Amino acid sequence: MRKGRLLGLGVGPGDPELITLKALRLLQSAPVVGYFVAKAKASKGQGGNAFGIIEEHLTDAQQRLPLVYPVTTEKLAPPLSYEDVIADFYDTCAVQIAAHLDAGRDVAVICEGDPFFYGSYMYLHDRLAAHYEVEVVPGVCSMLGCASVLGTPLVYRNQSLSVLSGVLPEEELKRRLQGAEAAVVMKLGRNFDKVRRVLQQLGLDQRAHYVERATMDNQRIVPLDEVEPMSSPYFSMILVPGEKWRG
Amino acid sequence: MRKGRLLGLGVGPGDPELITLKALRLLQSAPVVGYFVAKAKASKGQGGNAFGIIEEHLTDAQQRLPLVYPVTTEKLAPPLSYEDVIADFYDTCAVQIAAHLDAGRDVAVICEGDPFFYGSYMYLHDRLAAHYEVEVVPGVCSMLGCASVLGTPLVYRNQSLSVLSGVLPEEELKRRLQGAEAAVVMKLGRNFDKVRRVLQQLGLDQRAHYVERATMDNQRIVPLDEVEPMSSPYFSMILVPGEKWRG
Repeated sequence: MRKGRLLGLGVGPGDPELITLKALRLLQSAPVVGYFVAKAKASKGQGGNAFGIIEEHLTDAQQRLPLVYPVTTEKLAPPLSYEDVIADFYDTCAVQIAAHLDAGRDVAVICEGDPFFYGSYMYLHDRLAAHYEVEVVPGVCSMLGCASVLGTPLVYRNQSLSVLSGVLPEEELKRRLQGAEAAVVMKLGRNFDKVRRVLQQLGLDQRAHYVERATMDNQRIVPLDEVEPMSSPYFSMILVPGEKWRG
Repeated sequence: MRKGRLLGLGVGPGDPELITLKALRLLQSAPVVGYFVAKAKASKGQGGNAFGIIEEHLTDAQQRLPLVYPVTTEKLAPPLSYEDVIADFYDTCAVQIAAHLDAGRDVAVICEGDPFFYGSYMYLHDRLAAHYEVEVVPGVCSMLGCASVLGTPLVYRNQSLSVLSGVLPEEELKRRLQGAEAAVVMKLGRNFDKVRRVLQQLGLDQRAHYVERATMDNQRIVPLDEVEPMSSPYFSMILVPGEKWRG
């Protein structure tokens, strides 16, 4: 029997219209649609952000396969470790998906943004791609969604761009931002205050822009110095665009 | 009279199916469609790469506005300077587009990849956005198109990504690549040999992947050590994906 195909589909940063024609076609062709979702949302019968983007395109005949994250934080009480818990979770997801693929059913796993740019899909891909036919459809990534709603070109001509995680230690963040001509800092949340302090120390705060949930209905653009540090959601980002080049 | 709107539309990395629903809708709504094209192609009546991606969606009623680059190289014989020539060119383009906008016609400028990620559209945007209503639609950028066809996740979890131009001087390239956890090097062409040498010196060549024209019909994936240095086209790229994290 022919095995099913694994489809890793980028569905874009939030605006449902930012899905590509290709991702939409493959999504609609798949008998099984997998999506990651937080436990709190899943228990309320909700489907997570990526699912919300594409839900309108699904038919009743398509099977929903929620992949429910077992934890919502990376800080777990010993002897539990986040790394072990999350690796077990992805192992289990891969087994579930493989059962569908072995039965000949294609499985589309939808990914907010792009599948290979900090996405959870990557961990399924690494477990399954050697054993099944796989197709990955790239998507509009969140940082470019942010740049578009800010109306600010991100990188000019031969400028270097650094994409950084807000979880980096303060000194490393400082070193990497110092050398950057343009930068994007993701994963703010609890790290916001540290990131803003580093930008201020480097004199980059005047060039920095902050956005929450870019391209989504509840998008917010807030001046950097007015952000309440602990209120910064997961889908927030700071962009430091490159210096304008007259071109 | 109501002025027209400037639409900066990312049309993706090459595969025509990688355009978003939103870019397609706005493209089809625009009475004027602007696109950048090299002189050699324009003189043969051809439309350039971005135009090729979207041509099938246009109607005869939509006016084509070719924006023909005056030069194909950045090395000009003195007293000409690339910077001056190209700035004059963008000034002229902006005037042409402004005439349509002033007459109440929306102008869609199409951009391969994403408009704000190293795109020529940025220079029109910087000249016009203060004076007209503008909408920018982000697109799938070329580096994520490359990652998808390579089947290699680009950045895991909290890894830092450096996006670099191959035109950087050898020492700067080395310094920036050395500090990167994952990297993308664009604008290879004549710089290919230098970039490969640096990757070899840093021991990164075994992790590096080379692609030409990712997602296009004539896409080529070539092992790094088999690339003919001077044959590397403009639309080629090297990706150094981050080390796998088991997740």
